[in-house]
Amino acid sequence: MPVVPLADIQRAAERIRSSVVRTPLEASASLSRLVSVPVHLKMEHRQRTGAFKLRGAANAVLSLPPGTRGVVAASTGNHGRALAHAAREAGLACTICLSHLVPANKVAAVEALGARVHVHGASQDDAQREADRLERDEGLVAVPPFDHAAIVAGQGTIGLEIVEDLPDVTAVLVPLSGGGLIAGVAAAVKALAPDVRIVGVSMERGAAMAASLRAGHPVEVAELTTLADSLGGGIGLANRWTFDAVRELVDEVVLLTEAEISAGVRYIYQEEHEVVEGAAAVGVSALLSGRFRPRGATVALLSGRNIDPALHLRILNGADALEVGA
Amino acid sequence: MPVVPLADIQRAAERIRSSVVRTPLEASASLSRLVSVPVHLKMEHRQRTGAFKLRGAANAVLSLPPGTRGVVAASTGNHGRALAHAAREAGLACTICLSHLVPANKVAAVEALGARVHVHGASQDDAQREADRLERDEGLVAVPPFDHAAIVAGQGTIGLEIVEDLPDVTAVLVPLSGGGLIAGVAAAVKALAPDVRIVGVSMERGAAMAASLRAGHPVEVAELTTLADSLGGGIGLANRWTFDAVRELVDEVVLLTEAEISAGVRYIYQEEHEVVEGAAAVGVSALLSGRFRPRGATVALLSGRNIDPALHLRILNGADALEVGA
Repeated sequence: MPVVPLADIQRAAERIRSSVVRTPLEASASLSRLVSVPVHLKMEHRQRTGAFKLRGAANAVLSLPPGTRGVVAASTGNHGRALAHAAREAGLACTICLSHLVPANKVAAVEALGARVHVHGASQDDAQREADRLERDEGLVAVPPFDHAAIVAGQGTIGLEIVEDLPDVTAVLVPLSGGGLIAGVAAAVKALAPDVRIVGVSMERGAAMAASLRAGHPVEVAELTTLADSLGGGIGLANRWTFDAVRELVDEVVLLTEAEISAGVRYIYQEEHEVVEGAAAVGVSALLSGRFRPRGATVALLSGRNIDPALHLRILNGADALEVGA
Repeated sequence: MPVVPLADIQRAAERIRSSVVRTPLEASASLSRLVSVPVHLKMEHRQRTGAFKLRGAANAVLSLPPGTRGVVAASTGNHGRALAHAAREAGLACTICLSHLVPANKVAAVEALGARVHVHGASQDDAQREADRLERDEGLVAVPPFDHAAIVAGQGTIGLEIVEDLPDVTAVLVPLSGGGLIAGVAAAVKALAPDVRIVGVSMERGAAMAASLRAGHPVEVAELTTLADSLGGGIGLANRWTFDAVRELVDEVVLLTEAEISAGVRYIYQEEHEVVEGAAAVGVSALLSGRFRPRGATVALLSGRNIDPALHLRILNGADALEVGA
């Protein structure tokens, strides 16, 4: 049963209520004019730690049995940050495994969130193996970034809020990567409003879930540099939850060029005065590019704001690709 | 009695509760490290219509007696926008008087908020005279931008929220212009926590309230171009409320160079990933420049986000003055 039940998402909402921000849904006058339907932005980039990931991480941490010795993950990105924050709030030890390749400022950022940093090996795979070893040998609980029922249920709380704030929503544009976010949002929205169209949006360059949907089973894709870097990475060949959920719940997948993603980041800055990462802009990009044509009230989910300001500024100044070595 | 009583501010908070956003107070890790005390940012730039002005305008509009025919003001800036929005929400007619010098896009923006635009004369003074005439001849109620008890009480609701969210606050940095914002915030904060230091921050170029405080009475100053354009303009030679309130409640006034203001705008973008107008950055600028040295938990009030994106981008790219003709 890959689809997380509504009741689990509602319980997650209760569980994480005091740990997360209930982010606002704001009408965009300029986008609404542009596409001639009401467009609303779910301002989830204003979540604590700067991304939606805190919802799933907090739900996973707060669902752990008493006596849990600690949590572990191998992530320097939004998930690692969210898990470190959620564990600290819960008074639980958190270990983040990193490779020797990770720069010192990223190590310091994880430590500043109160996590123990464990440096091991020379690749992300090495770091993941070390996390697996700590799970086995030290009895830590691994909290994966997306393919986990408690993570999906936590992200799904965003869907509850969207339907509560905009009961006549007809479509939700959701950044699509490993599928934890869209599986949760779709489960919540479709349980409450079955006719709402759920649209996954990803980049043309290295979208693992889109390739897996086309293949009919999880496949690996070459990871390519993209402005939507948070959407990179595989979905896991042994995917248990999110692949089937996405196949069942997602009505449409839209893929974007790098230029379309950068146009979305720029538009959100110029018209909405918001700073978002590439991955968070894709819903707006899908509207601007005409790759998704809305027929009624539409929500674009802005998922995070953790972008290097130097890269963001390059985008504002017109860059529409991640230059090699830049 | 220039100081608005706490009870009036508390009543304003009740009155405007469903009309405004209760904006978050967010800790700034980077600023806290930099100045070695906890620094929190009051995210009032996320207010509806993009600036704190909605609080005062909503309180003024919702305090009007039944049967009021409509409201009038001569402002194309944050106050005009806030008043138009508040009047529409209340189902009240709103007239904004503008001169022929105001560009068409600003006229359209006011009309998009549902206000009637009345174009008259060739200067802001002409537009104000037309507003006065409409007040006299058509029985409209003039809602001034700052020097009005209901406006001050509305802005003061920000002070209630600051003390509620951060009971151990020791200083609040507030953008200082006509004084409506700081008079309200100071009245609320000092009534609840008398030892909190209230610091007004303005630009060196044309700060009318600072000059008036030095003179001991309201004076006019030459209006100069500044990155903090929302802080420009006079306080009114017949000032009734805010001059005396500021004199009584504000502990310190800090003036900033244009380069210091632009450094604040850039810092808030780079470190906080927020887009704010020059006037909203001045509290952060006062900390960065060392012109205010905090001794305990400090709040900087980010007051608005309504900046031309082209100007903001010039600041991000290093501009530290408003170039003539740019």
